[in-house]
Amino acid sequence: MQDLLTIGGHTFTSRFILGSGKYSYNLIDSAVNHAKAQIITMALRRTESSAENILNFIPEDVTILPNTSGSTTAEEAVRTAHLARELSGSDFIKLEVVPDKKYLMPDNDETVKATETLAKEGFIVMPYVLPDLNIARRLVDAGAATVMPLAAPIGTNKGLATKDLIQILIDEIDVPIIIDAGIGRPSEAAAAMEMGADAIMANTSMATAKNIPLMAEAFRLGVEAGRKAYLAGPGRIIERGAVASSPLTGLSK
Amino acid sequence: MQDLLTIGGHTFTSRFILGSGKYSYNLIDSAVNHAKAQIITMALRRTESSAENILNFIPEDVTILPNTSGSTTAEEAVRTAHLARELSGSDFIKLEVVPDKKYLMPDNDETVKATETLAKEGFIVMPYVLPDLNIARRLVDAGAATVMPLAAPIGTNKGLATKDLIQILIDEIDVPIIIDAGIGRPSEAAAAMEMGADAIMANTSMATAKNIPLMAEAFRLGVEAGRKAYLAGPGRIIERGAVASSPLTGLSK
Amino acid sequence: MQDLLTIGGHTFTSRFILGSGKYSYNLIDSAVNHAKAQIITMALRRTESSAENILNFIPEDVTILPNTSGSTTAEEAVRTAHLARELSGSDFIKLEVVPDKKYLMPDNDETVKATETLAKEGFIVMPYVLPDLNIARRLVDAGAATVMPLAAPIGTNKGLATKDLIQILIDEIDVPIIIDAGIGRPSEAAAAMEMGADAIMANTSMATAKNIPLMAEAFRLGVEAGRKAYLAGPGRIIERGAVASSPLTGLSK
Amino acid sequence: MQDLLTIGGHTFTSRFILGSGKYSYNLIDSAVNHAKAQIITMALRRTESSAENILNFIPEDVTILPNTSGSTTAEEAVRTAHLARELSGSDFIKLEVVPDKKYLMPDNDETVKATETLAKEGFIVMPYVLPDLNIARRLVDAGAATVMPLAAPIGTNKGLATKDLIQILIDEIDVPIIIDAGIGRPSEAAAAMEMGADAIMANTSMATAKNIPLMAEAFRLGVEAGRKAYLAGPGRIIERGAVASSPLTGLSK
Repeated sequence: MQDLLTIGGHTFTSRFILGSGKYSYNLIDSAVNHAKAQIITMALRRTESSAENILNFIPEDVTILPNTSGSTTAEEAVRTAHLARELSGSDFIKLEVVPDKKYLMPDNDETVKATETLAKEGFIVMPYVLPDLNIARRLVDAGAATVMPLAAPIGTNKGLATKDLIQILIDEIDVPIIIDAGIGRPSEAAAAMEMGADAIMANTSMATAKNIPLMAEAFRLGVEAGRKAYLAGPGRIIERGAVASSPLTGLSK
Repeated sequence: MQDLLTIGGHTFTSRFILGSGKYSYNLIDSAVNHAKAQIITMALRRTESSAENILNFIPEDVTILPNTSGSTTAEEAVRTAHLARELSGSDFIKLEVVPDKKYLMPDNDETVKATETLAKEGFIVMPYVLPDLNIARRLVDAGAATVMPLAAPIGTNKGLATKDLIQILIDEIDVPIIIDAGIGRPSEAAAAMEMGADAIMANTSMATAKNIPLMAEAFRLGVEAGRKAYLAGPGRIIERGAVASSPLTGLSK
Repeated sequence: MQDLLTIGGHTFTSRFILGSGKYSYNLIDSAVNHAKAQIITMALRRTESSAENILNFIPEDVTILPNTSGSTTAEEAVRTAHLARELSGSDFIKLEVVPDKKYLMPDNDETVKATETLAKEGFIVMPYVLPDLNIARRLVDAGAATVMPLAAPIGTNKGLATKDLIQILIDEIDVPIIIDAGIGRPSEAAAAMEMGADAIMANTSMATAKNIPLMAEAFRLGVEAGRKAYLAGPGRIIERGAVASSPLTGLSK
Repeated sequence: MQDLLTIGGHTFTSRFILGSGKYSYNLIDSAVNHAKAQIITMALRRTESSAENILNFIPEDVTILPNTSGSTTAEEAVRTAHLARELSGSDFIKLEVVPDKKYLMPDNDETVKATETLAKEGFIVMPYVLPDLNIARRLVDAGAATVMPLAAPIGTNKGLATKDLIQILIDEIDVPIIIDAGIGRPSEAAAAMEMGADAIMANTSMATAKNIPLMAEAFRLGVEAGRKAYLAGPGRIIERGAVASSPLTGLSK
C-alpha cells in the first residue's frame, strides 16, 4: 500500500514541495528531478510575456501551486487568487497574507478571512500561518485543505524554532500539516517529518547551497527518512543512565 | 566518482554500520537489506556451537567487525581481540574498553594503550571513545584506523549530546570519524553527517522501533541525506530578521 | 538611577509577577516576601464570602492584577473585567481569552477585540497571547499597556519554547513584554530577561517546588540576574575554536 | 544553617570563582565586590617585580588559587605548582595541563598523573578536565579536592555544551564539581547550579561585557538563583498538553 499525501482530493507520492523565492532554471530542475517535488509554488502575474513565462519550464505532471505573495490583506489575497486561477487554470492556492516587511510574519487573522472566501469559491486553500492552535481550528472550519505553519522566519534556515507549537497542530488538526519556511537542513526536514508533519516546503535552503542538485537530493532523502521513521514508530529515549547491550546473548529465534 | 568510506585500506559505499546490542534475525536482516549496512559489529566467543553460530546468518559480502565488549582494561581488550581474529579471520577490531557499568562510558586511556598494541600487531583498530581531542590525537599516533566518539550514553537514543566535542574531532582529526552510541533518530544521523561525520553506527534506535525493517530504511536514507547535504555545502543561517523572497523576479537565465 | 518597570503609568521595582493557578497561603506569602512580587494575578468572583476573601491575605502595597480566566470569548472577558474592576477597585486587568481546554492556548484574535473595548474604558490592559508580531502590533494600536506572550503551554515548566518568536516582540514592540506561562526554572527566567524581556510571570514552577519559599527566592534572584546581565551588555559568543587566556600578561593599569 | 562550599577543608559562602584570563583592576574589583568571589585564580611567576605584583591588589580575605596554565605535561604542571606554592604560600592549586593550542582542551591523562603527585605532596588539587566519568573517578582516587569540568571551550561563552556529561559527574562523583570554562551568561551559570553543580568559574563572560561590575553582580545573582533552585527541588516538566490552573478554587488553608 502506497503512502500518499492527499490535498483537496489530489494525491501525491512526494512530500517535498518547492517553496517560492528567487527562481532559477537550476533550482526548478533540481527540485523536480532531484528532490522529486510534485508541487511547485510560485507567484503568477499577468505581465509576464509568454517568452519568459515561467510556466513553460515546469513539467506537465508537476502541480503548480500559485501563491498570493505580495498581499498584505485578505482582500488583496483574494484578488490575487482570482488572477492566479485565471492564469493557471488551477484551483490550488497557497495563501500568503504578509503585512510585516521585516520578519515576513503572516497575518493569521486576515488569512482566516481569505480562507473563508476562497474555500467557498471552490479553491483548494493552503494557508501559510504562524503555528497557532486556535487559528488552525478556524482555518479547518473555514475549509482549508491544509495548514502550513512556519518553522522559523522565511529565508533564515534557522530550523524548527516553533517546534512545540507545530507539534500541537500535528496532534490536534485533521488536515495535512505542511511545514513552511525556516527549514535549513535535510536533518531538520527529517526531524519535522519524524514529529508527524505531512510534508515540507523549502526553497532558500536549496537555493543557498553550493551544489543545488545535490542538496535537492539530500532534501528528498531527508524527508523520506523522517516519514519512514515516523511510520516505523521510534523507540524510547532514556534520560539518565545507559542500557547495557548484551553481547554474549545468542540469536533469539 | 563514487563517494567511498575507506577504513584500513578497505572501501565501503555504505556509511551506516550496525552496532552491537541484542541481535535478532529481523535486526540483522533489516540492517543488511534495508539499512544497506556493509559492516556489522558483534562480540565473538569460542563457546558458540556451530549450530547457533551467528556468523552463519551474515551474508558473505558483509564485513564482520568483531568487538571487545565486556573488556574493562586494555589487557582484556587485547586478549579478546586476539580471540576474535582467530574466530573471524578478520583484522578489523572495534575496540571497546568499558569499566563503568552504569553509563557504559569508555575508558579513553586504556583504549589508547590497547590501540598501540593492536595496531602494531596489524589490526585495523576502530576505538570507541568519549570525544576528547587529545585522546583522538593519541589514537591516531598509535595507529587507529578510525575514531568512534559516542554521541550520548549507549542505548539512550538521546542524540548528539556531545555535538560540540565531536565537531572538534571532525575538524581536526584526519582518520574517519564514526559516530557511535546515542543516535536515536534518522534525523540525528543526518545531522551528524551534515556536521561532517564519516559514518554512523546504531543498534538500539532500530531495535526499539516498532517496525524494524522500515526504521532501518529510514536510517539509510537519513545517513545518505546528511552525507549529500554535507557535500552540497549548506547555506548560511540568519539569526535575526528574515529574507524577503522576490516572487516577481523573472527566471534568471 | 533606579531601574523601574512602568505599566500604565504605575512603576514597580520588581520584575517578578505571581501568575494565577492554585493558590495557597504559602505560595502568596512566598511570592510577596521571598520573590518580592509587587503584582499578583488572580481571578475575582462575587461569590467569595468576605470570610474567605483572598484579598484579605494580600498586603496593601501589592498590586492586585485581576484576570479574566475562564473567559472563552472577547465578550465574556469584557464582562469579567467589569466585574473585576467593581470588586477590586483597580483598573489593571490581565486579559485571558482561552477557548482551548487542552493546551490552554489563548485566542489572539478575541484578545485584540477585548483589548480595544477595555482600553477605551480606561482599563490598563495586559493581554496574554501567543507570541505573534502582527497581533502584538494590533494590541499596541488597541491600547494594550503590555504584551504578555507565552513561553510554553501553561503549567508545563517547559521553558522558552517560543524563544525566537518572543525575541521578535522584544525587538519590535514598544510596550513592556512580560513573559507568561511555561517558565519552569529560575535559569529560564534569567535567560528571558537576558533576551530583553521586561518582566516574568510564574506560578506553577514555584507551586510545584518542594520548598516553595526557597524557590520563590531563587526566582527573584534569577530575574534580577537576567535583568542586570541584559543591562550590562553580554559579550560575544565564539562558535568554533577557543580564546587563549594570557596568564602571563601583567595587570593593565 | 549556612550552605557552605567546602574545598580541601576550607569553607566558602560564595560559589562564584573568578577564572584566569586577561586581568584588569576593574575585573578583579568587580569579581570581589560585585560577584562576591572568595577565590581568584591566577598564574604566578617569579619574574613579577613587587611593584606590579598582582597579589597586592587582592584583598586579604580572598583565597588566591594559583594555576598551572602554560603547562603542557604533568611534569611541567608539577614544577609550576611547586613554584606557585613557594610564591603564594598556599596549598591550593588549580591544575591545568593543556597541550592543545587551538581549542585549549585539557589533557585528562596527564592531569591525573599530576594530581597523584601533587596530592601526595599535600596540595589541595583542583584539576581542570574534559567531563569524563572514568577520569573523574581516577582524579578522586588520586586525591583531587574537586573536579572542574569544562562546559565549552575556554573563552567561547558557548554555555553548557557538555551538559549531559557534566550531569553524570554531578550524579556520580563525591567531591565538589566546579564548572570551568565556557559559561557565557548568568542564566547558564544558574542552569549549571540547578543541575547540582557546586560552583561556577568564569572570566571571559565578565571581561567581555560592556559593564563589568554590573555583569559581575548578575553572575553572583545567577549562581545564587541556581543554587537555591537546586536546593528547593524543582517541579516536574510536562512534555505534552498543559495543566489547567484553577482560578476559582478558594485558598487552601
